[in-house]
Amino acid sequence: MKEVKIGILGFGTVGAGVVEGILKNGDLMAERTGIRPVVAKIADLDVETDRGVAVADGVLTTDAVAVIDDPNIDVIVELIGGVTIAKNFVLRALKNGKQVVTANKALLADFGEEIYRTAQENGAGIYYEAAVGGGIPVLRSQRAGLIGNRIESIYGILNGTCNYILTRMEREGLPFDEILADAQALGYAETPPDLDIDGVDTAHKAVVLASMAYGAPVPMDACPTAGIRGLSSQEIDNAEELGYRIKLLAIIKDNDGEVELSVEPTLVPEGHMIASVSDSFNAVFVKGDIVDDTMYYGRGAGRLPTGSAVIGDIMEAAADRLNEAGVPVSVTMMLQKETLAYCPAEKIEKRCYIRLSLLDQPGSMGKVMESLGRYNISIASVVQKERHTGGYVPVVILTHKAKEVEFASAIQEINSLSVSEAEPVRMRIEDFES
Amino acid sequence: MKEVKIGILGFGTVGAGVVEGILKNGDLMAERTGIRPVVAKIADLDVETDRGVAVADGVLTTDAVAVIDDPNIDVIVELIGGVTIAKNFVLRALKNGKQVVTANKALLADFGEEIYRTAQENGAGIYYEAAVGGGIPVLRSQRAGLIGNRIESIYGILNGTCNYILTRMEREGLPFDEILADAQALGYAETPPDLDIDGVDTAHKAVVLASMAYGAPVPMDACPTAGIRGLSSQEIDNAEELGYRIKLLAIIKDNDGEVELSVEPTLVPEGHMIASVSDSFNAVFVKGDIVDDTMYYGRGAGRLPTGSAVIGDIMEAAADRLNEAGVPVSVTMMLQKETLAYCPAEKIEKRCYIRLSLLDQPGSMGKVMESLGRYNISIASVVQKERHTGGYVPVVILTHKAKEVEFASAIQEINSLSVSEAEPVRMRIEDFES
Repeated sequence: MKEVKIGILGFGTVGAGVVEGILKNGDLMAERTGIRPVVAKIADLDVETDRGVAVADGVLTTDAVAVIDDPNIDVIVELIGGVTIAKNFVLRALKNGKQVVTANKALLADFGEEIYRTAQENGAGIYYEAAVGGGIPVLRSQRAGLIGNRIESIYGILNGTCNYILTRMEREGLPFDEILADAQALGYAETPPDLDIDGVDTAHKAVVLASMAYGAPVPMDACPTAGIRGLSSQEIDNAEELGYRIKLLAIIKDNDGEVELSVEPTLVPEGHMIASVSDSFNAVFVKGDIVDDTMYYGRGAGRLPTGSAVIGDIMEAAADRLNEAGVPVSVTMMLQKETLAYCPAEKIEKRCYIRLSLLDQPGSMGKVMESLGRYNISIASVVQKERHTGGYVPVVILTHKAKEVEFASAIQEINSLSVSEAEPVRMRIEDFES
Repeated sequence: MKEVKIGILGFGTVGAGVVEGILKNGDLMAERTGIRPVVAKIADLDVETDRGVAVADGVLTTDAVAVIDDPNIDVIVELIGGVTIAKNFVLRALKNGKQVVTANKALLADFGEEIYRTAQENGAGIYYEAAVGGGIPVLRSQRAGLIGNRIESIYGILNGTCNYILTRMEREGLPFDEILADAQALGYAETPPDLDIDGVDTAHKAVVLASMAYGAPVPMDACPTAGIRGLSSQEIDNAEELGYRIKLLAIIKDNDGEVELSVEPTLVPEGHMIASVSDSFNAVFVKGDIVDDTMYYGRGAGRLPTGSAVIGDIMEAAADRLNEAGVPVSVTMMLQKETLAYCPAEKIEKRCYIRLSLLDQPGSMGKVMESLGRYNISIASVVQKERHTGGYVPVVILTHKAKEVEFASAIQEINSLSVSEAEPVRMRIEDFES
């Protein structure tokens, strides 16, 4: 039986999950693959706290560098998080020719190019399934099962916290702030919650997915990002009445050779599979030019689900090392091109949901329609609700497809109209046509 | 750039799809992986018919054995189907030490053990992603991404024809025979349709999934199989009223170390993701002890989707060969044990839907309840519909969990009651508790 010696950096939630998984099923993995995973070293600044998993004497250490430099260790698993120390450690391990496994989406989003190139130059591999979609083997599906496909589009629910909040808002009809506070109390949302609810975490994952789909590192600033902070229950209710649900989506498309990329709250038809993804689950829809629609669903976070993905990577990294497979596809796929062409804002088209609060007097609606018409935005449906107190009525408009830049201009113009109270709310509608 | 030389046996629908995919995206695959796929030979008895894809001179041949024996060919792709010639060719290729890719579920279900052992003995690999779930990378997810998981349960919609028929019956309210005839006319169902609608095709795929999950070849007779032939619209309507949909499910569970396995039409809660899988799409729910619930969704058949899975396998087989990786996990995972323990019928428990046609007279229902009680079957709900013509009333019973063998005895007893007209209809209800 061959063995793979693993050095884990960071003994937090996921680190403990990985160790637990290997303790539990290490024998099974050895039976299945012929390779026995052995946790040789675990480095953490805190070697005292009980993580609830058994660790043999001499395995725990505070000296991460010694683990990275240990010639007996085949695979380094980075589970520290952040982009400073983690980056140094990952680069050092790759320069040592180690196989590296990481769950660190921020690190790949911000410094992916440097990391992939360092791996390539040193004949090493970096594996990062756990960075996107937690336990869901979605990157592996892209780089193995779908390797023969040009990727036409990817739609992802990639942040469990946001999906949990949206699901509860929908079910319970309570306001965003209240659900968020409760989610924080229950440990489903971080404090502060910014990275999650402002969409940044989703964007980190989106750029990794897009990089793999189109073959070059994608910078974060190529991904316009909006989160769900302060989303009103009115939007949830209106969407439901109209046959939609609101999801925070990562949207990645090949627009005639140019990459369209964004993270934004989006109305999705309630009959579509992605609308059924609830609570803290994640899901990724991938459409390939050969395979057509596929979807991958599972837990996007958590000690064991993320641990499952890390373990899958460890075993692949081990097999690649034992077979002297060289630089793996998880690296070569990210470095096919120097750079990508991105779809300029002027070319991006979408459908939108627009909610206005209009002065309840003749001509109000006419002025709005005039503005929309001026920017070539045509209307699919309009619902005017009963009058609110204060002489304003809520109006909900669903548009046909129009240009993003024209939406922006039209909304600005409508906002400046005297008949419009408060800033209009606008969200994307996605019908998954491509 | 490295090259992989491919020999394809069988130039039918899927064969042409594979060639089309490689023609279309071969450059992309080479860029991504560093390996260029080259279709060196295609063997078919018919080398005249135009398959709509360009093939270079000298590639087409009627001599399959020459292709299998050609020392220049690295990967043999078996797309002939059936279990006679295909078996001989696959075994011969493995004995030649070739990597073999197949989409042939019947072959693996019937002769998997011999094939995996031949691969192992000859240091070769057999890859068969396309045999289960068409284009969906579900086997690869099990043997790579989820490699660290003990599989607790698998629920699969694995036959697109059945799912298409069920979806249309549900939407259009038309009888089974009519939809089947239409599906045949449209090319969505084979003539004769037996393998699909009697559940045999689903069972072929179920035993492959179960073999991989639990580590030994599973014989077809370990999988009790019922299809959807003659399913009445009444069942579809009743299920809908009760908040369920009917799906033909492959059900695979680890029951305390014993494998429970079946293929049967099953009522699934309409809110569950698997209920949203419609038309000819397939989906597989896999629950691992570490990763928890995951799901994989996509097209279960068709020239290009199946071609996509075959191409993924070709590229993996090529990489394994170039890296001298030896016998792959797709073989070792199937041969961990000599044999598996199966859950005996006396231990299998499920919930059921039962539809009876009862004489509309006092005491009828009492007799039925008495029979159910005698076999320890307790009732979750009963709906008695209005009287039919002829003095019989339809009664629908949803039970709690009870033993399969007791259901069988109770139904036999009820069928013999003078108050019961026609044979009772019984189907599983699955709540996905584990």
